[in-house]
Amino acid sequence: MKERYLLSTPAAAKLYNKIKDCPIYDYHCHLSAREITEDITFDNIGELWLGADHYKWRLMRAAGIDENLITGNAGWREKFIAYAGVISKAAGNPLYHWSHMELSRYFNIDTTISEESANAIWEEANETIKKSKLSPKKLIRMSNVKYIATTDDITDSLKYHSMLQSQSDFDTVVAPSMRFDKLLLINRDDYAQYIRTLSEQTKIYISNIDQLQSAVSEKVKYFIKHNCKFADIGIPFFPDVTDDEKAASKAFEDALEGKTASSSDYSAFLRKMLLFIGKECRQNNIILQLHLAVLRNTNTELFIKLGPDCGADCIGDVIEGSKIASLLDAMNSNAGLPFVVLYTLNPSMTSQLAAIAGSFQNVRLGAAWWFADHKRGIAEVINTIAEIGYIDGFLGMLTDSRSFLSYTRHDYFRRILASILSDWTESGEFSGNTLQLAEDICYKNIKQLIFDK
Amino acid sequence: MKERYLLSTPAAAKLYNKIKDCPIYDYHCHLSAREITEDITFDNIGELWLGADHYKWRLMRAAGIDENLITGNAGWREKFIAYAGVISKAAGNPLYHWSHMELSRYFNIDTTISEESANAIWEEANETIKKSKLSPKKLIRMSNVKYIATTDDITDSLKYHSMLQSQSDFDTVVAPSMRFDKLLLINRDDYAQYIRTLSEQTKIYISNIDQLQSAVSEKVKYFIKHNCKFADIGIPFFPDVTDDEKAASKAFEDALEGKTASSSDYSAFLRKMLLFIGKECRQNNIILQLHLAVLRNTNTELFIKLGPDCGADCIGDVIEGSKIASLLDAMNSNAGLPFVVLYTLNPSMTSQLAAIAGSFQNVRLGAAWWFADHKRGIAEVINTIAEIGYIDGFLGMLTDSRSFLSYTRHDYFRRILASILSDWTESGEFSGNTLQLAEDICYKNIKQLIFDK
Amino acid sequence: MKERYLLSTPAAAKLYNKIKDCPIYDYHCHLSAREITEDITFDNIGELWLGADHYKWRLMRAAGIDENLITGNAGWREKFIAYAGVISKAAGNPLYHWSHMELSRYFNIDTTISEESANAIWEEANETIKKSKLSPKKLIRMSNVKYIATTDDITDSLKYHSMLQSQSDFDTVVAPSMRFDKLLLINRDDYAQYIRTLSEQTKIYISNIDQLQSAVSEKVKYFIKHNCKFADIGIPFFPDVTDDEKAASKAFEDALEGKTASSSDYSAFLRKMLLFIGKECRQNNIILQLHLAVLRNTNTELFIKLGPDCGADCIGDVIEGSKIASLLDAMNSNAGLPFVVLYTLNPSMTSQLAAIAGSFQNVRLGAAWWFADHKRGIAEVINTIAEIGYIDGFLGMLTDSRSFLSYTRHDYFRRILASILSDWTESGEFSGNTLQLAEDICYKNIKQLIFDK
Repeated sequence: MKERYLLSTPAAAKLYNKIKDCPIYDYHCHLSAREITEDITFDNIGELWLGADHYKWRLMRAAGIDENLITGNAGWREKFIAYAGVISKAAGNPLYHWSHMELSRYFNIDTTISEESANAIWEEANETIKKSKLSPKKLIRMSNVKYIATTDDITDSLKYHSMLQSQSDFDTVVAPSMRFDKLLLINRDDYAQYIRTLSEQTKIYISNIDQLQSAVSEKVKYFIKHNCKFADIGIPFFPDVTDDEKAASKAFEDALEGKTASSSDYSAFLRKMLLFIGKECRQNNIILQLHLAVLRNTNTELFIKLGPDCGADCIGDVIEGSKIASLLDAMNSNAGLPFVVLYTLNPSMTSQLAAIAGSFQNVRLGAAWWFADHKRGIAEVINTIAEIGYIDGFLGMLTDSRSFLSYTRHDYFRRILASILSDWTESGEFSGNTLQLAEDICYKNIKQLIFDK
Repeated sequence: MKERYLLSTPAAAKLYNKIKDCPIYDYHCHLSAREITEDITFDNIGELWLGADHYKWRLMRAAGIDENLITGNAGWREKFIAYAGVISKAAGNPLYHWSHMELSRYFNIDTTISEESANAIWEEANETIKKSKLSPKKLIRMSNVKYIATTDDITDSLKYHSMLQSQSDFDTVVAPSMRFDKLLLINRDDYAQYIRTLSEQTKIYISNIDQLQSAVSEKVKYFIKHNCKFADIGIPFFPDVTDDEKAASKAFEDALEGKTASSSDYSAFLRKMLLFIGKECRQNNIILQLHLAVLRNTNTELFIKLGPDCGADCIGDVIEGSKIASLLDAMNSNAGLPFVVLYTLNPSMTSQLAAIAGSFQNVRLGAAWWFADHKRGIAEVINTIAEIGYIDGFLGMLTDSRSFLSYTRHDYFRRILASILSDWTESGEFSGNTLQLAEDICYKNIKQLIFDK
Repeated sequence: MKERYLLSTPAAAKLYNKIKDCPIYDYHCHLSAREITEDITFDNIGELWLGADHYKWRLMRAAGIDENLITGNAGWREKFIAYAGVISKAAGNPLYHWSHMELSRYFNIDTTISEESANAIWEEANETIKKSKLSPKKLIRMSNVKYIATTDDITDSLKYHSMLQSQSDFDTVVAPSMRFDKLLLINRDDYAQYIRTLSEQTKIYISNIDQLQSAVSEKVKYFIKHNCKFADIGIPFFPDVTDDEKAASKAFEDALEGKTASSSDYSAFLRKMLLFIGKECRQNNIILQLHLAVLRNTNTELFIKLGPDCGADCIGDVIEGSKIASLLDAMNSNAGLPFVVLYTLNPSMTSQLAAIAGSFQNVRLGAAWWFADHKRGIAEVINTIAEIGYIDGFLGMLTDSRSFLSYTRHDYFRRILASILSDWTESGEFSGNTLQLAEDICYKNIKQLIFDK
């Protein structure tokens, strides 16, 4: 079954076989550089699966599981068994696919997960963890990962990235990516403190936007010294189309004084800063990723109990494409566009984003992300890029994950990609070289973008 | 053919066969309790099909049929023949499927409907109506319906529900649902009169929102005494995210004086009342249904001639999910969330609603509704719940209908569900118990929700 | 392969075979009446394909081709070879399908396009152009086109249409359509000049909206004298729901003075003018086409270099259906609705538009357009019309093209239509006459609308 899993036809299986072992360039994820550096050991599959995975927490809540068995004090074994019971009825959910694929790939377990099989899986998986010494580095090597771009706040020290780069036992490149969210979310309580940290790190006094930008430029240089190739923004806001220097300044000054910036001032600040970040990226050959349409921390009760990333984030509202196009056009007029990748959580935006991407050179629609990262969602993005954009330019898959087991998502993607491409060939809709396309999308495009630009 | 209708594979047919006779819990419909109580007799299939079904009226208008043959003075036979001519070319329309399924199920007629076959069908169907004494109760029994939740304005006397509950010849539970639309649509001409009725019924003097809420609480108690388990709101408005006591009061007071409330005051009123209704539902264990994104009475000419429900309603504009999440979060913070079911007419909202539902326990995405209630629409909802939510928690199908023949929609749904579930099994994407899933979705989940909570 | 291309089953092929040679009524395109009249000769396939086709330019840019090879000074042969290289990897793009279909249909070349085959194709195609004397009239005749509606500004002299109508060697009707975009886009620099032209042509002094409307009425008469049956609006704006005479006047007067109208004044002007145009169409039996949700000229750098139609247009933002319904309702109340066709670039609007269309008689959802005009997009529109509207009322395909080779798009459409209809029959979902449906949609509906109304 594994050999045909998600593969539409024998032709799809044949194509998949040729690309399944291609190297992985995981250009956006949330892995911890520290955990890789220290090559931490795992205790059990319960912790490994359920310790931090808010995708799984959501699913368990939807199934009516008590919070104690999700994020509470229950033991890992109990939590694992509860999850197994839930997953056994989660047909059609990507967690169903991923969980089984992870068991199969890293634990050699091909049992169907259920409450009944949970105990045996628990024992066997934990033994494998110990016996095979499954650790971050081990899993990364097993998965043929050549490149990892982590996601790091611009005030991050990057000390673990430095350490990793000097570890001789590990060939995979682990590079930081600059995340600008904390810089841009100025209405946080601790924003002034954040700016003080930035000021201390860069030794630049910051009381206005010019100074702020100087400090950010320093951090960009620092990241680039650490091999950084990607920048990333994933905030639930997007600026309006108008420039307003004064309002932008007011927003920032208000924020430094602990006042809440008005919505229009904030928009002006955001526009100004995004143009600045675009310029920095362009000048430093950094690929800018915009993660659009996310709505975070919607459940106040859970947020108070568990903080962010607890499983109460949602698909955000549609952002008008006219605003996105206006920002890209302004970046282009300002200092030239950097290479930009547009991701959206809201599938209603997919076609429009693809059309916008096609109006500027070096702007691309990104892979299906988070709530859209499932079989139909992945197929939708592949098809839309093919129809409205150019499939051979697609940068392919990334894990976006906190887990070292998530490389199976690349396998998942490759199966779907192979099916779509070979279906086109089988039906006579395409007579070109599908293997070349598949390889470009699986790793060659992104490899070239990272290393040849 | 009937045995394979809409069923993708022999495996789908096998699964379908196991669930096709499951009982029906029709938890949202617009049947008339009076018509059931009186067990009215029908005269002919023309009246039965075309007397009140604005879905069919729309289709006939789109086909260019003269209004006289739709809602005018033409006889039922002529109207039926006109409809038959239209339906014969309505490929892909759910009415094509439903009409044939209804003929087959309740009249044992498997002829393809067309202008040519219309006369014979007319004769045979009418004979069956007479011979088999097709009446509401007969049809409900034939369909194995255990539970019916009608939709009733909160000022409804519920006298027919009371009568039904004491009729010993009829086992199906027919419970009222509280519909709050008339209470919430304060800019109607007859709103002050409506509030006077509410005041008289509850013997509570109503000149402000507090008094209004007291009166509504009385009606909630009254409905619960009559077995009510569901509340329902289906208005074309949704409140903004801000609370404003003063504006809410002003809106209500304006309305009582016959003035039109401003849009922002109305939003404040709506938010306040929805939070109140949420609290009432939570405290009384009532399931709250929100029917979102409907645009009513768009054709003034038809509205003047025929009034509401004449076939000129539309899919409404997208409601921003951030507003919906904010309301649910406020309900949760206010008094705890009731069980909430979110339906949308606008398919662009489906994914976002599913994500929002997953951020709160006991919030669910509802079945495909009205303009989305067709083969692809049903499949879209099933897939989206599976991908973004938890398929085993899906509450399944409801008819939303005014017609006693509409139970075939459950059959339609079951065929599509069986196809999707068994396709997952066939392709190796799911190895769990599809029969259990199918039964949960077909009736066990909703039964448990109604009777065990 | 050609005989099965895009056809799902042998039954689809059989149905397709019966409709493939049906006449074409191409009721919306951007062909040049001058080029037809003069029956210009083409030099080579490079110019023919790449001279004006901004679809192809976008694709080449997305593939990273240098602008010199797209719109620059490179020779046609070089440009053609560059395009061939791009197309060889453009799996899933409609240009891949169309390019191959055009080669096959008009050049009898069935080679797969690639950089390797490009030279041979270049030679063979150019020889065919010369040998077969491929010219506009030749291509139109080869394609069995009975009717062409071009798109013409209302100040166009229509002299080529007049000449064509008197050419005895050419039977295809080539009628102008009134395009109102330049009239409605009042914030252009040359708007006052445009109005002066209109004034001179009609000999009506224009200083207010009444006079403007009188002048437009004259132009409508002029177009009708030239066989015009269609009007068309494709601007990136849509009016709000409120009427405001004063604001409308102010917008127009500002525009005449070269001032920029405010957004609310402009909305009022637009609403007033659209109601007026609706009335003119109704009274003159003109079919009004609204091309909605387009965002033009998003890339300022390209716009400065190349002007409009350079490949930097996008899918526009969703227009709220409530506004569209309000406009149609106002038209209906004002003077009665003309026959209206609603097209949208933004696929998120498709379902809502279909529902709106069904609330008014003689309003139709139009064919998949531009960025939506691909295999899945066409299928989506066919399915949506079937589900929410009435498939037998669908007006079918149009090219929307500047190229005389684009009639293959009708072939493309017919293959997809035949597949969908016959799949419904094969699966037992439809038992009616699919050939009749297919013929109605392919040409009978539009023929009847043009000639019998």
